[in-house]
Amino acid sequence: MDAIRWQEDHLLLLDQTKLPLVEEYIECWDHYVVARAIKILQVRGAPAIGAAAAFGVALAALNYQGDSAEEFEREVNQAIDDLAKTRPTAVNLFWALTRMKAFLESTRGSSIEDRQQAILAEAQALLAEDKAMNEQMGAYGQTLIPESAGVLTHCNAGALATGGFGTALGVIRAAHQAGKEISVFADETRPLLQGARLTAWELMKDGIPVTLITDSMAAYVMKQKLVDLVIVGADRITANGDVANKIGTYGLALLAKAHGIPFYVAAPVSTFDLSLQSGDEIPIEERDSEEVRTLGGTTTAPLEVPVYNPSFDVTPHQYVTAFITDRGIIQAPYLENLQKHMK
Amino acid sequence: MDAIRWQEDHLLLLDQTKLPLVEEYIECWDHYVVARAIKILQVRGAPAIGAAAAFGVALAALNYQGDSAEEFEREVNQAIDDLAKTRPTAVNLFWALTRMKAFLESTRGSSIEDRQQAILAEAQALLAEDKAMNEQMGAYGQTLIPESAGVLTHCNAGALATGGFGTALGVIRAAHQAGKEISVFADETRPLLQGARLTAWELMKDGIPVTLITDSMAAYVMKQKLVDLVIVGADRITANGDVANKIGTYGLALLAKAHGIPFYVAAPVSTFDLSLQSGDEIPIEERDSEEVRTLGGTTTAPLEVPVYNPSFDVTPHQYVTAFITDRGIIQAPYLENLQKHMK
Repeated sequence: MDAIRWQEDHLLLLDQTKLPLVEEYIECWDHYVVARAIKILQVRGAPAIGAAAAFGVALAALNYQGDSAEEFEREVNQAIDDLAKTRPTAVNLFWALTRMKAFLESTRGSSIEDRQQAILAEAQALLAEDKAMNEQMGAYGQTLIPESAGVLTHCNAGALATGGFGTALGVIRAAHQAGKEISVFADETRPLLQGARLTAWELMKDGIPVTLITDSMAAYVMKQKLVDLVIVGADRITANGDVANKIGTYGLALLAKAHGIPFYVAAPVSTFDLSLQSGDEIPIEERDSEEVRTLGGTTTAPLEVPVYNPSFDVTPHQYVTAFITDRGIIQAPYLENLQKHMK
Repeated sequence: MDAIRWQEDHLLLLDQTKLPLVEEYIECWDHYVVARAIKILQVRGAPAIGAAAAFGVALAALNYQGDSAEEFEREVNQAIDDLAKTRPTAVNLFWALTRMKAFLESTRGSSIEDRQQAILAEAQALLAEDKAMNEQMGAYGQTLIPESAGVLTHCNAGALATGGFGTALGVIRAAHQAGKEISVFADETRPLLQGARLTAWELMKDGIPVTLITDSMAAYVMKQKLVDLVIVGADRITANGDVANKIGTYGLALLAKAHGIPFYVAAPVSTFDLSLQSGDEIPIEERDSEEVRTLGGTTTAPLEVPVYNPSFDVTPHQYVTAFITDRGIIQAPYLENLQKHMK
């Protein structure tokens, strides 16, 4: 079950809007299909968006049929621009595109065909590295988890959201594989239910005990002492340690604090954006009202009711107990320690 | 738009499971239909459940065709027992049934027909009194609301949840009617979306500005300073001021506290259960897993995923800024002041 798979000459993306009832891959033969898949959340999760976009760049390179190096770069750069316009919040997208752009430039002087193959190989390397980073994160992060623990997570920061294994769910997987007795509470994560549809599905596939709750139940399960720690992924982390992640994360962090429960954020180096000083600078995507007014085609509210639908929120750094990264566990003070680890 | 209406010789209940898309009344000719309507949430909201149950008792009385006072009482008492088994958390149900039982006994000595008519009149009085209490609550409560205010509410504590006007929404209505500039954020309130389906619908009908959000957005709208106060209804309030209300209320109270926002609970005298010392003693209803796994017939999670579905939570009294009741605003210390007002 790979969310992203290169197959000979085209990209396959597991259509995450259809899970868990239908397991279906989208065939991508050009970067337009990849861009659309990112935009409409057929592929989602910050690291997965980055990897898919890298393959979008590779497809644009492979589809070039002329013999002008200049035209080749123009077309690939156009694809990079198109892909950059899909979603604003997750920095992994821009990180991956920046990397691919720099790589494109580094191949100058080679034949078009060599450059095409090299760019594809670079996208494949980025995907493989992401999976390896997740496994590394899992190894570091699972040391923070007690032998027996109730773990609450939000949205899906799993294999589906990454090149494989997962960030937050990677840590949970690693703890489970280490023989720890893990019981997961998965917030369903309205409006698009990534927790109910994806996290529950992933954990059930791996035989990790999971209980589905609505987002509004998190405080109550904490009060009942069913949760020993919270662990989530991230879409962008700024220099001071502020965290943009799926809407609802900030509230969870406050609730964890109120109950004295540690709140961990698991993210690879590609999610850290030290060019921004604080979370106030992160662009927060607002999505269509229909996501809140409807569910799977069922209308659940008055047709014309005004809706506010921010897709992310920002958790201030003081609520983060520690960051779990592929470079180790990072503790406060974050302004200092993030600089140190992310250099 | 009455949620509960007596029509000549039978009860009409607005089917709240079909709102907002379909406005349809259920005709109740016996207490069994009323009990089922309460159980499956066709009528819901603590005060409305109490009033509907009172009419269920009246229907049982009216349907008695014999001439034995003993048998009459036995049948009516059986209906009271049946109705008491429908839902455990809202105390208004038991309050109304206790009142009807006492009233039944007070009619001893009269003819069966007189007793039947008197019991029906008592149910009608209870309904009318509930509406009057809501209006009184609105008048008291609106004094707490600034001239211009963002108000967050959860679930539906409106006209639909009561004999009319509403508890939390009654206060909002009264403030709106007093010319205040009120803007409401309505939590959609998963799993059954009473906020999206009922609160949004009620407020739109009254022309009160409302914005629908998912439950997980509450913290973020507070952080953005869009919310000046939170106001909710209640299903049961104990002697120390602990509040059982729709799942998610406890989390909201913590979030309000973290943001320095007042958190008000609006409830009539029938919601106070001073026989219980604290919220720990309140039975919390757990409902079917399918409510969380599905939405309007659409499956939104793996079919076999374990679910935890408590329908209510308990907010400890220290998070309640004040109670708004038909007997006035009640401030802490609650143990003392609730006794004083509720005598």
